[in-house]
Amino acid sequence: MLGVGDDCALFTVSPGMQLASSTDLLVEGQHFFSAVDPGALGHKALAVNLSDLAAMGARPIACLLGISLPAVNHDWLQAFSDGFHSLSIQAGCPLVGGDTTRSNNGIVISVTVMGEVASDKALRRTAAQIDDDIWLTGTLGAADIALRLLQGRLPDNAALLAATRPHLEKPLPPWAFAQLLTGVAHAALDVSDGLVQDLGHILAASQCAAELQYDCLPVDHSIVGLDNLLVQQAVLAGGDVYQLCFTAPQGQRQHIKEQAQQAGVQATRVGRITRGRGLRILDSQDQPMLIAQGGYDHFS
Amino acid sequence: MLGVGDDCALFTVSPGMQLASSTDLLVEGQHFFSAVDPGALGHKALAVNLSDLAAMGARPIACLLGISLPAVNHDWLQAFSDGFHSLSIQAGCPLVGGDTTRSNNGIVISVTVMGEVASDKALRRTAAQIDDDIWLTGTLGAADIALRLLQGRLPDNAALLAATRPHLEKPLPPWAFAQLLTGVAHAALDVSDGLVQDLGHILAASQCAAELQYDCLPVDHSIVGLDNLLVQQAVLAGGDVYQLCFTAPQGQRQHIKEQAQQAGVQATRVGRITRGRGLRILDSQDQPMLIAQGGYDHFS
Repeated sequence: MLGVGDDCALFTVSPGMQLASSTDLLVEGQHFFSAVDPGALGHKALAVNLSDLAAMGARPIACLLGISLPAVNHDWLQAFSDGFHSLSIQAGCPLVGGDTTRSNNGIVISVTVMGEVASDKALRRTAAQIDDDIWLTGTLGAADIALRLLQGRLPDNAALLAATRPHLEKPLPPWAFAQLLTGVAHAALDVSDGLVQDLGHILAASQCAAELQYDCLPVDHSIVGLDNLLVQQAVLAGGDVYQLCFTAPQGQRQHIKEQAQQAGVQATRVGRITRGRGLRILDSQDQPMLIAQGGYDHFS
Repeated sequence: MLGVGDDCALFTVSPGMQLASSTDLLVEGQHFFSAVDPGALGHKALAVNLSDLAAMGARPIACLLGISLPAVNHDWLQAFSDGFHSLSIQAGCPLVGGDTTRSNNGIVISVTVMGEVASDKALRRTAAQIDDDIWLTGTLGAADIALRLLQGRLPDNAALLAATRPHLEKPLPPWAFAQLLTGVAHAALDVSDGLVQDLGHILAASQCAAELQYDCLPVDHSIVGLDNLLVQQAVLAGGDVYQLCFTAPQGQRQHIKEQAQQAGVQATRVGRITRGRGLRILDSQDQPMLIAQGGYDHFS
């Protein structure tokens, strides 16, 4: 494999595997605060792309980084690189090429990841089936609360910020567990824009409906005890989660639990795929607390 | 192959082939003028990446586009897309995924291309051999003159601008011819920063020297007759060329000429690889007119 130093990076995709690729652009002021910790930014720039690979069940193989900076700040760049590199090692996703340029318009980061997945085994949004269980990895809500605190939309609370901020700034998508789901799960995607909106993408693509049990949702322990409506909004509509939402046949429950345990990932069964259209979220009395027709609207 | 609409694009790399990948970031005010024709910008954003694939001898297979815009301007975006799409069709390099975001800091474009090349046949910068011929595709100097006119570094000259501007704004790298060079040429790269600087990269990577005959260089006809020193600077140090510089054994001369003719590409033999270090450029009396030690310095 040929890394940085020629016109292109070169690498090999294993026989029988397809290449999965995704790209994301992160713009200062839009996707991150100017004062963000550069190490956390380096981590997150790669993490959000690894999350896309996980959503397909693909194994990370390599990444490319483009970065545009107003001026060369050696310390900033070193910290950014350390954060990026550390996650790239952890995920087995080496940096093989890139582009560094100067910009007078703020920092822009572009990351492209490449992964491989057995041909025709990728987890697709279109593949949900009636009576599938709906599963979530990780927890919900903490990143959204951290964002609200940082944006001043919630009163200052240092302890709450300290507990929630790592979810916003250093997400760890379940890329290893996701690979174990190929041939097991049906549909999958990563929760980046909020559970209601993102699950809506699966429902629309798979032409089905879903019911979620609100009480089953894995609310992050750091936000338990906050105002109920705030928690609901954070859990149902909060973005930046970078965990998986996937559907799987009921017969796979035991297998999925075992695989999750082995991978050290929390996997929670939160509802099921039904006939029809739209998403219904039921409270502890099985009464609908939210009905999203089409499932696309932001809950806000 | 799965295009835009899931978490990743999916595609297949042919058996026995390696994947070649490159990414470029284009920033408003830095890499293009704010007032640039959006169709030309769409074309160029892809062209500069196709040029990287050509430099490896790789066949384009797919591309990803990230674009960050201050506001959604439908006409601008349509023209940009048309320019991008038209070249992507021409090069057989379909857009399979991407990311569109909002930015308050000017337009940023990120393009990643993927191509395939037979394993161990990629054209590498390190592969030049003593006594190789040095070849160039296309012509030199026109893009640089256009840039100087647009930046006001040369007096207004509408006819000259009209003749040179397409070289700057709509380069057409020789991606098809480049594929014919695998197994034929030794080292290759694309001329993006100027012939002296870029050839210097081959010489450094291959640990050899080179002699060029200035009178053999393919000066673009649009700039013939301009001030001699200006033409020299444009030809030797002008960037944005996006044509190939490659080295090949003398025994391949006839074959290369025939392949170039079939591909409709101008290929010119301009010098040879020698022992030692550095680049010598000889005038019509075989006297050195430029000696660049190491070959890395901008000629300016």
